Amino acid sequence: MPHRVLTGITTTGTLHLGNYVGAIRPAVAASRAPGVESFFFMADFHALIKCDEPDRIARSSRAIAATWVAAGLDTDRVTLYRQSDIPEIPELTWLLTCVTAKGQMNRAHAYKAAVDAAVAAGEDPDANVSMGLFSYPVLMAADILMFNAHQVPVGKDQVQHIEMARDVAQRFNHLFGQGREFFVLPEAVTDAEMELLPGLDGRKMSKSYDNVIPLFEGGAKALKDAVARIVTDSKLPGEPKDPEGQALVALHDAFATPEQRAAFRTALREGLGWGEAKQHLVNLIEAQIGPMRARYDALMANPAELEAILQAGAAKARAIAVPFLKQLREAVGLRPYTATATTAQAKVEKAALPLFKQYREADGKFYFKLLSADGTLLLQSTAFDQGRDAGQWVARLKREGLVADAPVTREAADADIAAALAAFQGE
Amino acid sequence: MPHRVLTGITTTGTLHLGNYVGAIRPAVAASRAPGVESFFFMADFHALIKCDEPDRIARSSRAIAATWVAAGLDTDRVTLYRQSDIPEIPELTWLLTCVTAKGQMNRAHAYKAAVDAAVAAGEDPDANVSMGLFSYPVLMAADILMFNAHQVPVGKDQVQHIEMARDVAQRFNHLFGQGREFFVLPEAVTDAEMELLPGLDGRKMSKSYDNVIPLFEGGAKALKDAVARIVTDSKLPGEPKDPEGQALVALHDAFATPEQRAAFRTALREGLGWGEAKQHLVNLIEAQIGPMRARYDALMANPAELEAILQAGAAKARAIAVPFLKQLREAVGLRPYTATATTAQAKVEKAALPLFKQYREADGKFYFKLLSADGTLLLQSTAFDQGRDAGQWVARLKREGLVADAPVTREAADADIAAALAAFQGE
Repeated sequence: MPHRVLTGITTTGTLHLGNYVGAIRPAVAASRAPGVESFFFMADFHALIKCDEPDRIARSSRAIAATWVAAGLDTDRVTLYRQSDIPEIPELTWLLTCVTAKGQMNRAHAYKAAVDAAVAAGEDPDANVSMGLFSYPVLMAADILMFNAHQVPVGKDQVQHIEMARDVAQRFNHLFGQGREFFVLPEAVTDAEMELLPGLDGRKMSKSYDNVIPLFEGGAKALKDAVARIVTDSKLPGEPKDPEGQALVALHDAFATPEQRAAFRTALREGLGWGEAKQHLVNLIEAQIGPMRARYDALMANPAELEAILQAGAAKARAIAVPFLKQLREAVGLRPYTATATTAQAKVEKAALPLFKQYREADGKFYFKLLSADGTLLLQSTAFDQGRDAGQWVARLKREGLVADAPVTREAADADIAAALAAFQGE
Repeated sequence: MPHRVLTGITTTGTLHLGNYVGAIRPAVAASRAPGVESFFFMADFHALIKCDEPDRIARSSRAIAATWVAAGLDTDRVTLYRQSDIPEIPELTWLLTCVTAKGQMNRAHAYKAAVDAAVAAGEDPDANVSMGLFSYPVLMAADILMFNAHQVPVGKDQVQHIEMARDVAQRFNHLFGQGREFFVLPEAVTDAEMELLPGLDGRKMSKSYDNVIPLFEGGAKALKDAVARIVTDSKLPGEPKDPEGQALVALHDAFATPEQRAAFRTALREGLGWGEAKQHLVNLIEAQIGPMRARYDALMANPAELEAILQAGAAKARAIAVPFLKQLREAVGLRPYTATATTAQAKVEKAALPLFKQYREADGKFYFKLLSADGTLLLQSTAFDQGRDAGQWVARLKREGLVADAPVTREAADADIAAALAAFQGE
């Protein structure tokens, strides 16, 4: 199994330049590393905990998905999906809920902070705590364990939740594994090197400081207007300027090559005016962000295209989640009445399922094939330029059975193919 | 909409004659009443809370489903399904989890009993509490609200859970209904007339007393053997016997017509021997149970038939659950990107009030800020080491208005800040 990395994005706002430099850009780069299989999801079930404004959640999910795609996420390569499109996640959440000790949730930092605040205000300790806030680490464990992610890049405040996911995974493995390790134990990755972009006022760029530079919203004009508001000292053009400690310079560094960084500092020391420096910064950022913004605007103007990308992502994610949850249900005792109770026999049954394989050839094209339980080739697809097209056909074949116009060669009798496809019904 | 009645059966054991007389027989009869739409489900997600023996859960679910069908449930008329076959239920559970106050779960009897037991044993209060036990009322609310049941027949110990389901339903309707009542408020039905069958020793028939008469298991022989062990007095055949207070007579009553009841009492008073009386009772029970047992045995011997019945039930249940959940998802903001947000919903933004936000930054410090109704930043706090310090300042600002020495930066005109703070007065 390749190394799996999973990243969730809560869908309650829009993104700014600090998010791009600190999270999106490095995650997109990391997703291109060889041997890595990346999962990115819009954490809209989590958003419900914090936000009871339905329109805001819907808008945010769409804007953030468009942002990630526009920022260069290769959705043929990574799996990008909405959490709420994977019904296996709340189901796994319940299975994990039954093996999670309440005492562990009592110790969660986010919960304890809410209790502290209520107590300080003279209120009942749980006055502001919903069950969503309290149970949130269990949902997060399900997000991670559903795909057996090895690594989860998180902020320091989330490390504890990854440890909780490990504990729950161990407990489930122990109780129901019969020697099998159903779940990989995930590791938190906190990047000490993560670039913290300063905001307009020099403090960390953050919505709570109202000092952000928007990433795509408002177009090039909003970028230019924001940069114009970056706080500098009051030195005039021609006066030598100290580049160190300037938010403007730190912002420049985040988008510049080492040579550009040195040249910018030299120019400031030699008297470059702040106005000119800001125009230079706008040009630099716009050179990287501009083409992405065009893609973002196109996606926002064409929700059907974005929706199709997310649907294809959900199909890829469920191709993992559905058969895995089937095994987990079996392990805890949720079994069809026709299943025999012994795990030994159940294992044989599992092996007896047909299989879709999606893959990429050396020609760079995407393909899929359907294999019978014994490995016989049943269907072979034609080549696709886009992985998501292959994914969509697989999803449709699973859902509808042998579709007349599917771009496939039938390598076996139609009856055998239909029988194999029937095994996917109801997934 | 017809009157809906919903009954859940936890799948951790097998059923005895007391379950049949007290629960199954009246429920089957009630399901035949005109104008009633009955839902019966195997509560196997609930079973996971109490039981980590997978084989036992699987066996119990199958045996109990066969029992209900054999006992005369008309599955063409009622909806009989496995809870775990309805993925919409755990999904709805999460939506409800986000609108359930933790404080309410703290007050659940089952949870409090577990805490009391742990404290009495000198352990941590939550020592034996899983998140499954703690969250169980939310899952139960989802069971009920998924099908908008009007009535839920329950034991007295479950009445509180129905009240919790009502509260959750009201809160969801209020937050997301936009004037629409998504959920019917369910009512608990506790049948004061419910027949409590005595066991072999005269106490209530219960597995915990080891005094049960099996319903189907063990065949006619097990029934006969159990009846032979019913405790009577030691009067000999020919001696007059007092029928009152005899477990044997109460068991007889449960299966007899009024005429048969009177005749049985007369015969005992006239000296009928206990041995003969027991044979009479066996014949009476067997006349009603025997044909059902034959059907039960046939279903247990043919799991495919039983499975098909449950699959058909799941399809009927999901014909309701799938479109309803779609509406609920839409209401909370989980929408395809192609869906447009309705302007009506946008109008009723919750942001009609100013808002204090308390939060923690990556630096580990606590902050708060005050936002106006339209989201403009009004106050920004400095950093606090302790969350409760932030909470105390928020409470004081709410109570006293703009305090001179509050550790905040004023980000707007004093008049605007004061006007916003006035909205919290009297909270």
